Amino acid sequence: MTHTVVVASGGLDSTAAMALHAAAGDHLTAVTINYGQRHIREIAAARAVAGHYDADHVVVDLPDLARVLTGSALTDPAVAVPHGHYAAPTMAATVVPNRNAILANVAVGIAVAIKADAVVVGIHVGDHPVYPDCRPEFIDALQVCVAAATAGYHTPRVDAPFVHWTKTAVARLAAKLGAPIELTWSCYEGGELHCGRCGTCVERREALELAGVADPTAYRPDDVKGRTHGHVLDR
Amino acid sequence: MTHTVVVASGGLDSTAAMALHAAAGDHLTAVTINYGQRHIREIAAARAVAGHYDADHVVVDLPDLARVLTGSALTDPAVAVPHGHYAAPTMAATVVPNRNAILANVAVGIAVAIKADAVVVGIHVGDHPVYPDCRPEFIDALQVCVAAATAGYHTPRVDAPFVHWTKTAVARLAAKLGAPIELTWSCYEGGELHCGRCGTCVERREALELAGVADPTAYRPDDVKGRTHGHVLDR
Repeated sequence: MTHTVVVASGGLDSTAAMALHAAAGDHLTAVTINYGQRHIREIAAARAVAGHYDADHVVVDLPDLARVLTGSALTDPAVAVPHGHYAAPTMAATVVPNRNAILANVAVGIAVAIKADAVVVGIHVGDHPVYPDCRPEFIDALQVCVAAATAGYHTPRVDAPFVHWTKTAVARLAAKLGAPIELTWSCYEGGELHCGRCGTCVERREALELAGVADPTAYRPDDVKGRTHGHVLDR
Repeated sequence: MTHTVVVASGGLDSTAAMALHAAAGDHLTAVTINYGQRHIREIAAARAVAGHYDADHVVVDLPDLARVLTGSALTDPAVAVPHGHYAAPTMAATVVPNRNAILANVAVGIAVAIKADAVVVGIHVGDHPVYPDCRPEFIDALQVCVAAATAGYHTPRVDAPFVHWTKTAVARLAAKLGAPIELTWSCYEGGELHCGRCGTCVERREALELAGVADPTAYRPDDVKGRTHGHVLDR
C-alpha cells in the first residue's frame, strides 16, 4: 500500500490533499508543525481532520522557529495581520522567511524515517503571487534537493497535486470527495472564530463561493461587511 | 561589510569556516541548532567559538526533531554510536534523516530575516562517503531551492568552501589561521571528554595528526589504544 505523508496545516488545501489520497486508498500520515505561528488554532483543526481520515498524526513542536524567523505577521506579534485580498502585495507581510522549505524538509525527514513513499503539499495557484515557496519552481528544486540529500538511503517523492489548480478547483474537489470542510481552519489571526478579513479568510470564502460550495465557516459576528472586502476572482 | 551566517556545530570544520570568514573581515553570525542530538555538548563548544570570534550567536532550540527523525545513533538513545573509521559503512547508523537540509534551511530562514549575504557550511570530502547531504550535488540543489523559495525577497548565497577539501586540509587551514581548536567539540557520544573511538573522534584525531597539528583534545582516560583503532588515510 502506498504510504503518503501529507503536510497538514488544518486548512482547506491540505485537507483536500488528504481527501485525494484517502480516496486513492493510501495509508496516510499527517504531519503538522508548530512553528510558533499566531494561528496555533490550526493544529487542533489538523488533528480533527487527521482523525476524520483515520490517519496517523505527527505533531512536531518547534515553536522556537518563530523567535528566529522574524518579520512576518504570522510569527511576530509586532507585525499586524493584513486585511484584504490574498493575492495583494500587502500580503507580503505574511511571508515567513523560507518557511515552506523548512516545513517540507522536516516532513521529508519524517518520511525517510518511516519509509513513506511520498510527501504531499497542498499549495495551489492562488499562493503563487505572494509566496515564492509555493511555486512550481520551488517544488521542482525541492525534489532535486531531497533526492540529493537522501541518495543511497530512502528518497520519498515530493508531490504538489494542486500546484497548477485554482483554490476554487481545490474547493470543488474537496466538496466532491466529501472532505470535512467544517473541521478546517484557515484564519491567520489567533481567535476562536475565523476573522473573515485577513487574506486567507477572504480567499477561503471566495473559493467556496465560486465553487458553489456552502460555506460552513463561523465568522466573527463583527464581520458584518466581510463579504464585500475582497475582489472576487476565479483563483 | 559582508554579513555571513555560519552553521556552527562547535566542531573543527565549522570553526575553520568561522576562521576563514573572520580572516576575510566579515560580520559573522553563528547559527547552532539543538535538534535533540546526543552530543548536546557541541552547543557549548559553538558558543565558546562564537565568543572567540566576537560573532553574534543564534541558538535555535528544536529538540522535538530528535523524536521524529528516528533511527539514527545521534538522535535515538536506542541506537548505539558506532566505533571505527568515519568513512566506514557502519557509520550509516549516524545518518539523521534529511538532517542537513533541515538545519541549512533554518539557517537560510534566519539569513533571510537578518538580510545576511551568505550561509556557510563546513562540509568536506571526508563527509561524502556516508552522508549524501554533505556532497556537492546537495549543495548545488540547495542553492537552487533557496533561490526559488526566496525569489523576489532576499536570497542568501549558500557556500561550502571546503566541499572539495580533505579534513586534513581543513585542519591545516584552521591551525594556520589560529582557530581555537581547543574549544571545539567533535565527539558523537554525550560525555564530558571526547571518547576517541566514535567515527568523528577517529576522523578528528587522524586529520590533526596528518596535518601535523598538535592535538589539544582531552580524550577519555580509558581510551588507551585509541590511536590504533582507525585506518589513517589522507582524507
